[in-house]
Amino acid sequence: MKITEWNNTMTIQRSVDQGSEQDRQTVQNIIRDVQENGDAALFSYTKKWDRAELTTLRVSKQEIEQALQEIDPQLKQDLQEAADNIRAFHELQLRDELTLPLDHDSYLAYRFLPMDAAGLYVPGGTAAYPSSVLMNAIPAKVAGVGKLVITTPPKSDGSIPIGVLVAASIAGVDEIYKVGGAQAIAALAYGTESIPKVDKITGPGNRFVALAKREVFGTVSIDSIAGPSEIAVLADDTARPADVAADLIAQAEHDVLACSILITTSHKLAEQVKTEVERQLSTLPRQEIARASIENYGMIYVTESMEQAVEAVNQLAPEHLEILSENAEALSRQIRHAGAIFLGRYSSEPIGDYFAGTNHVLPTNSTARFSSGLSVEDFQKKTSVINYTKELWNQNYPKIARLARMEQLEGHARAVEIRKDQEEINHD
Amino acid sequence: MKITEWNNTMTIQRSVDQGSEQDRQTVQNIIRDVQENGDAALFSYTKKWDRAELTTLRVSKQEIEQALQEIDPQLKQDLQEAADNIRAFHELQLRDELTLPLDHDSYLAYRFLPMDAAGLYVPGGTAAYPSSVLMNAIPAKVAGVGKLVITTPPKSDGSIPIGVLVAASIAGVDEIYKVGGAQAIAALAYGTESIPKVDKITGPGNRFVALAKREVFGTVSIDSIAGPSEIAVLADDTARPADVAADLIAQAEHDVLACSILITTSHKLAEQVKTEVERQLSTLPRQEIARASIENYGMIYVTESMEQAVEAVNQLAPEHLEILSENAEALSRQIRHAGAIFLGRYSSEPIGDYFAGTNHVLPTNSTARFSSGLSVEDFQKKTSVINYTKELWNQNYPKIARLARMEQLEGHARAVEIRKDQEEINHD
Repeated sequence: MKITEWNNTMTIQRSVDQGSEQDRQTVQNIIRDVQENGDAALFSYTKKWDRAELTTLRVSKQEIEQALQEIDPQLKQDLQEAADNIRAFHELQLRDELTLPLDHDSYLAYRFLPMDAAGLYVPGGTAAYPSSVLMNAIPAKVAGVGKLVITTPPKSDGSIPIGVLVAASIAGVDEIYKVGGAQAIAALAYGTESIPKVDKITGPGNRFVALAKREVFGTVSIDSIAGPSEIAVLADDTARPADVAADLIAQAEHDVLACSILITTSHKLAEQVKTEVERQLSTLPRQEIARASIENYGMIYVTESMEQAVEAVNQLAPEHLEILSENAEALSRQIRHAGAIFLGRYSSEPIGDYFAGTNHVLPTNSTARFSSGLSVEDFQKKTSVINYTKELWNQNYPKIARLARMEQLEGHARAVEIRKDQEEINHD
Repeated sequence: MKITEWNNTMTIQRSVDQGSEQDRQTVQNIIRDVQENGDAALFSYTKKWDRAELTTLRVSKQEIEQALQEIDPQLKQDLQEAADNIRAFHELQLRDELTLPLDHDSYLAYRFLPMDAAGLYVPGGTAAYPSSVLMNAIPAKVAGVGKLVITTPPKSDGSIPIGVLVAASIAGVDEIYKVGGAQAIAALAYGTESIPKVDKITGPGNRFVALAKREVFGTVSIDSIAGPSEIAVLADDTARPADVAADLIAQAEHDVLACSILITTSHKLAEQVKTEVERQLSTLPRQEIARASIENYGMIYVTESMEQAVEAVNQLAPEHLEILSENAEALSRQIRHAGAIFLGRYSSEPIGDYFAGTNHVLPTNSTARFSSGLSVEDFQKKTSVINYTKELWNQNYPKIARLARMEQLEGHARAVEIRKDQEEINHD
């Protein structure tokens, strides 16, 4: 890893492949095909790209039962405990209706209502992470979404990885469909004979999936398009080099585009971490990926002071931030931009990826400046309620009429005034 | 207005002009020009399109002082009272940090942090609505946004409407710049010598503004692109035809694409409202616009039952919903999708547009199925905090390591395990 002095032109932003114009055309054609031909198009794409010849798209109860039988009972229990933790943290986010009482028995209210239906895309192959199923599905269920469905590409024998089926079952997913790629996104956005149209689509995917989400955005709600993952470790000289190195490497093994950064006030720690990263990398199974990530995007920044280090974090606005310092809690109060913050030596970042209960779907590429991790609110809408009684209306309608006329909206002024005419005319 | 029986194929969705490929090119060129040439590009576009030759972009303190002197004191007071109401309703939305205590002094937390800077676009001409300034600016200020700026096109004499300046002053806007169109959006997204780069851009605009927001989306956060406004009135035979007609017309006078719908169980009310709409339209200043809207998109649906009427509302998912019935509150509990709900005879919709305190920036075109009106949360981000103590780590790290290995992320497993090695090696 390179060690350098921090200066405020540093960034973690990486330009991400958005797909070519030809890819966009391909995706648009697939979407149109699914809109026109429904299930038939889905069967055809699944045969072509996943090499699976299906006769039915929906995963059967038997398949789920079988997965629950086959999975290592220990792992099943771990997933269940993780799900309980995720549920607890997300239930904390639920809000009761808010009410603002006004004069004369009038009131305003703010209601939190779930979406009717949501769709979760789960990638295939090695990216079919059961932990991501929990992280996407549980917030939707806690929000009260009526129908939660998964689409995921089948293997060529038509099966779905058992980890995904078990996680979906634990999370309470209602329906699972064997379809992936842009065609799955199209099916969720517009509906087919088998697959229900949903209101929101979340979950990671390859660039065709990302392009398809972009295309259907507006017709349905989508989550943000996730970029490669990143971590910043903010450490003083009390941090242990091996901890820091291990957490930097854990991030790097995700993706050659992942970004692992150490920000420290300690030259000594910087040197020790550099050495330790090399040592630990040498025995890592995903060494090739992690090494490419560390070489291209890994950085150790040494700052003059802890204040400068904090400002560096705020400028980077990292997805994950670890604070390894005796002062971790107090320092975290100075952080304005980070997706999730891990405090102290024992809050290693993978704890959040799998188990603690916070969501692991977090804003990447510095978007923590203006966006947030996945939450219950992503599956809710808010409705304002206005209840004006006659007395409060009577007290205020002339003001409202004046404001409307200032904007030359006479019809608006008349609408609030006409209640008066009727009072006078109807006497009731 | 047409009267027809409701059936469940009815929709309020209108296709909205998204701008041509040529418009998109124009906007991309403007954005590039502003990125490269900064203020110089802004002065040049402002001269070309707004016919204003400026030497400085920022509105001066004197200009604001003068507006505060010139405005009708009554209107100023009305705006101040409206602002107080909006502030009260939006402060209700603020949340304290949430904490979930875990075993062994561990905890999870959820923090709500404001964005650093936000930009509000205010259209020029007759669409320069002071009420919209309040509705966009106050949620940002309540959220705690550090710097809130407005961009708005000047008149050819270089001035800004006094209503906008007064509303901005009342709302606590920090800086106002005389620039409109796609160039203003580019300036807010990338910053220029005069105009600060922001994290989020909100506010309505013409199609060039909408296209520019779409282009900078990702670099900054944007609000949803607003479609034409709409209202659904759900009424039984206790409603007064004149009230209903006036509220339908108030919506229709906004835009020829606005959509005003009555859903009623009463044939008699349907006929009376139809007549009353004609009568009231005949004296409306914006009669031409309102009539076009009513003719093209206005509908009266008669349903067989109140249940069917409620289902109709849920299918339409209107931006505004009025419920005119003795049962309004109870009926509103059955509404799953609406931007804002107005209960009873005295809660005429313009009360929400101007005064009650709820936000008038609301989801249009049936997007209330999955989105919400503007709120304090739109200017906040959420950060998760994970604080695991040694004891809780010790209790759980084997589970986390197993889950990581299930996903073939050995580096993740080692990161949580390495704390153990150090315990054994370092004995501290």
